[in-house]
Amino acid sequence: MTAKATKYLDRIDSPADLRKLSVNELPAYCAELREFIIREVSANPGHLGASLGAVELAVAIHYVYDTPNDKLVWDVGHQAYAHKILTGRRGLFPTNRKLGGISGFPKMSESAYDAFGAGHSSTSISAALGLSRALRTADGGGPKCVAVIGDGAMTGGLAFEGLNNAGADPDNDILVVLNDNRISIDPNVGALKEALLDISTSRHYNRFKDSTWKAMNRVPRMRRMIQKMLNGAKSFFLHQSNLFESFNFRYFGPVDGNDVVALVRALRDLRTLPGPKILHALTVKGKGYAPAEQDQTEWHAPGRFDPETGERLSPPSAGNGSLRFQDVFGHTLVRLAEADPRIVGITPAMPTGCSMNLLMERMPERAYDVGIAEGHAVTFAAGLAAGGKIPFCNIYSSFMQRAVDNVIHDAALQELPVVLCLDRAGLVGEDGATHHGAFDLALLRGVPNLTIAAPMDATELRDLMYTASAGKDGMWVIRYPRGGSFPAKVLDEPLTPVEPGRGRILREPEGARVAVVSVGAIGTEAQAAVSSLADEGIAAAHYDLRFVKPLDTALLERIGEKGYRYVVTVEDGVIAGGAGSAVLEYFSDRGFLTGGLRVVRLGLPDRFVEHGTVGQLRALCGIDAASIADRIRSLAV
Amino acid sequence: MTAKATKYLDRIDSPADLRKLSVNELPAYCAELREFIIREVSANPGHLGASLGAVELAVAIHYVYDTPNDKLVWDVGHQAYAHKILTGRRGLFPTNRKLGGISGFPKMSESAYDAFGAGHSSTSISAALGLSRALRTADGGGPKCVAVIGDGAMTGGLAFEGLNNAGADPDNDILVVLNDNRISIDPNVGALKEALLDISTSRHYNRFKDSTWKAMNRVPRMRRMIQKMLNGAKSFFLHQSNLFESFNFRYFGPVDGNDVVALVRALRDLRTLPGPKILHALTVKGKGYAPAEQDQTEWHAPGRFDPETGERLSPPSAGNGSLRFQDVFGHTLVRLAEADPRIVGITPAMPTGCSMNLLMERMPERAYDVGIAEGHAVTFAAGLAAGGKIPFCNIYSSFMQRAVDNVIHDAALQELPVVLCLDRAGLVGEDGATHHGAFDLALLRGVPNLTIAAPMDATELRDLMYTASAGKDGMWVIRYPRGGSFPAKVLDEPLTPVEPGRGRILREPEGARVAVVSVGAIGTEAQAAVSSLADEGIAAAHYDLRFVKPLDTALLERIGEKGYRYVVTVEDGVIAGGAGSAVLEYFSDRGFLTGGLRVVRLGLPDRFVEHGTVGQLRALCGIDAASIADRIRSLAV
Repeated sequence: MTAKATKYLDRIDSPADLRKLSVNELPAYCAELREFIIREVSANPGHLGASLGAVELAVAIHYVYDTPNDKLVWDVGHQAYAHKILTGRRGLFPTNRKLGGISGFPKMSESAYDAFGAGHSSTSISAALGLSRALRTADGGGPKCVAVIGDGAMTGGLAFEGLNNAGADPDNDILVVLNDNRISIDPNVGALKEALLDISTSRHYNRFKDSTWKAMNRVPRMRRMIQKMLNGAKSFFLHQSNLFESFNFRYFGPVDGNDVVALVRALRDLRTLPGPKILHALTVKGKGYAPAEQDQTEWHAPGRFDPETGERLSPPSAGNGSLRFQDVFGHTLVRLAEADPRIVGITPAMPTGCSMNLLMERMPERAYDVGIAEGHAVTFAAGLAAGGKIPFCNIYSSFMQRAVDNVIHDAALQELPVVLCLDRAGLVGEDGATHHGAFDLALLRGVPNLTIAAPMDATELRDLMYTASAGKDGMWVIRYPRGGSFPAKVLDEPLTPVEPGRGRILREPEGARVAVVSVGAIGTEAQAAVSSLADEGIAAAHYDLRFVKPLDTALLERIGEKGYRYVVTVEDGVIAGGAGSAVLEYFSDRGFLTGGLRVVRLGLPDRFVEHGTVGQLRALCGIDAASIADRIRSLAV
Repeated sequence: MTAKATKYLDRIDSPADLRKLSVNELPAYCAELREFIIREVSANPGHLGASLGAVELAVAIHYVYDTPNDKLVWDVGHQAYAHKILTGRRGLFPTNRKLGGISGFPKMSESAYDAFGAGHSSTSISAALGLSRALRTADGGGPKCVAVIGDGAMTGGLAFEGLNNAGADPDNDILVVLNDNRISIDPNVGALKEALLDISTSRHYNRFKDSTWKAMNRVPRMRRMIQKMLNGAKSFFLHQSNLFESFNFRYFGPVDGNDVVALVRALRDLRTLPGPKILHALTVKGKGYAPAEQDQTEWHAPGRFDPETGERLSPPSAGNGSLRFQDVFGHTLVRLAEADPRIVGITPAMPTGCSMNLLMERMPERAYDVGIAEGHAVTFAAGLAAGGKIPFCNIYSSFMQRAVDNVIHDAALQELPVVLCLDRAGLVGEDGATHHGAFDLALLRGVPNLTIAAPMDATELRDLMYTASAGKDGMWVIRYPRGGSFPAKVLDEPLTPVEPGRGRILREPEGARVAVVSVGAIGTEAQAAVSSLADEGIAAAHYDLRFVKPLDTALLERIGEKGYRYVVTVEDGVIAGGAGSAVLEYFSDRGFLTGGLRVVRLGLPDRFVEHGTVGQLRALCGIDAASIADRIRSLAV
């Protein structure tokens, strides 16, 4: 796909430019925007499908609303590429998600048009309500606030808390645009999906409404009146009652969310309508790019591809038959479930991402996709465990921050055998600050009754899962990063139980002044560092802590008594209170430090780490092999 | 109120005993139960109002359902006294909430009838769904699962996640009993409340339904059919559409939830009805005890009282005009808000508990009670801050565990000036393991961009609030415990800004071998310890860290260079990764430990701490004055 000549794209670098177009020119501009996004994302990977679906929403909202005075809040934010491009970041778009470049998500510090940042789901209604209340003038006026939220994000409890509060006061002048494409990353689940589908497919109602709507086309005030009547009359046509009206939101729609002219028309009316209101827009994820429309899950974030042919140039699996941690999790879970009928799986809307789809395909009755609902995922798992099951609940590490209380109060406190697998732990790369799994170890290691493990490789992940699946030691947390590359034959290895709280001695040369204690898969960087130093003639020991809780006190005693001058801990989470601190606490309590041993903790610094490749970010944080080697070298000689 | 002779109470120590009664005997049993609860709670304080309101629910459910084979899950759990008493804990009830006694909440380890424990809100639907799925037999049978959830708890997003998932599959055989008393601890808020009120006061509908229902009284199968028709017909009668039907729940009710005979009748029908269904029961909080019915907020947990007269014997305020931390927060917030129009207040359903009610009364337009919705509270606050406000969001420390991601992702990452005040930090006493504010420091100190402070007394709390209210240093966290006793004149003191990250030197005697570094109000115990040791002739220094983040590095350098042999850190949170670890990390990084300094960290151990008085629990954890003194003594000589 070579860049075609564009008529509008290059002229529009702000909503003010956009507003100079006539409504009839908007479809052509949207087509150019869409082609630009396809071309750019084909070369510089990003979130394609959601952004293609939301081109018209971005254009119509900026066309009608007085942004940035009016406030536009994008939920999740990975659908906002058109928004970014038309708000002055077209030229920067080739830097999207690159180190030092623009973020793949809305970001307040990046643009006045990014009224509120988001990488996690379901925050937009609460945030937009806050903005609306804050900016309201004494006479009840003030800027308009719009939240654009996907139907997937609507399954998150936070969105309901926002709806319940926004609807509580008719003075809350907020528009929620429900961007309903019936899919999160995988297709949506839950009763809400059925309700939305019911609304949007109620033919009688829509036919009646559409014809009335069209008839009133040139009489806006009349149309608004009719709209009100229609909403009142809706229950006659809809079998399903309307959820949003239960929350005192006035419901409008459904409209074709990929018809920019229809959107502009609807938004012009809604902008002047006071109170809490929802516009239900039906969009197509991947809209306008046939391959992306056809396989919406695969094309959520497709990696590089040939825009002409749709050929994927960087497929999500590691290639040449090798396996990522994710693949190993999915296959191992199936194998464990085949052997033990108590084992079930739970994912909050990430079946493909975490490979829970393998269990869902094999044993659909024993795998649950609960939607974007991390809190429910853990409490539901705790309920399953209370009923005798061994639930494997897989949550991305940064999203687990939504379920901290559920871990503490529902699972750990009751010593229930929930196996919480945290995927995407550590630095995730291009998704950046909102998505790094930076906090899990620091958040969870103070919680009693937990066993917390971090496998260094595929074999350890399998063995840890196997051990946890016995359900004997209360709640387990197993955290591992995105990616990895393991030979497929690892899946054929026998599963071997691991003693909980037992680490590994990887290298213990005589005469070493420095010992490295690494936690989880970042240990491969430490391993490379120690190995390269050995080539230089610098001996350093290397231990794989494996369990952050309980600590391997026997191993730590051994290390303490070896006479090392330095213990260097390496983790890919925050160092404040992280696994290195656990080691430090132990050595301190046991008096090894006054004996001369020093602990040097490497990990993520006390600032949010931005986006870039995992390699770049590890180097920035000083936890890549080269940085670790430098540090050891400085201590060893 | 002397104990009257009882006819049923003493005979019933299990649901099996209960089921020997005829339906017509149940009201008399309920009356006896209620009187027992009033008498017991008048002498041994606990949650009175909610438990009085739920007497009939507990009796009817155990009467109809085959507990403990069928599973009964109480949301929040503080309404479950009747449940506890009739499931074999009548004799133990005088030990309720006492050290070594039974818990004030359902607790799995305490009884087979406690199918799932809870002290926090909104978990019951998720847990009951888990139990239901886990216990389902291959032929789709299995025990029945019932969740009893208050209308207040329904405002929590987790409850909606549960509803959305439970309603997604018509095979989910679960009954949700909505215990609708229109109040949490304070009266409920939000659009949902309006919707429920609308349902329960829709006269046309109820009149039609009641008459039909009564006519069908002796024909259960017919009644069920009619019930179905009624639910279908409801939208004709109800202006408001029914939220629960949007989630594919079949809605039944409202019924009088304090009419045990009506409840038994309804539950007998519902027990055999498959699929997800909700019974809307209207109850009166405090039912049957006039003072508690009249002031439901004050009588939520009234302390000791005279059951005959309703005279409160241990009023919630500290008495004799003195102020608790809570009072100081409330009054100071009003004063700050009067001086700065940017300041607003937010509470998730705890206006009286945290004293936000003072701002609500004075400036209702600038104070928000958002319902039991801690996640929304913080993200809404972040939105307000993005719009230029300085929001003071007050959340009980243990409930803040629900908002960890909102703190990280919505507020801290965006450097928004949200002031998060954590009430009930540290050990809370009789509410026990679910309620201790044990984790806040360990959870939050690894989060970048935060300023985390812990005042030792009322003056510090006021000055910290004043400093934070400038909105200049991004997000603040200020944590303080329940209680305290400060003279009223503290409110007249001038407000003095505090330098962020600056601690205090409280006592620095010459020749001390031991220095205590305390964090927050537990510092008074340390102060008493150091003072009593001085009387013994043992000199120990005492520093008030005040800020867990940023650390007072100048103060720590000073301590490090003083030549102490031991630094004893004292906090009332978990020691794993807590404030003491922050001090340890600093001394380790700066090389003071190899210089001979040892850090001894005192705080909460790596197990959940149960209920008891705060004094008892502090002693158990070794952080009362006597334990601290013992520890210092052992190190100082």
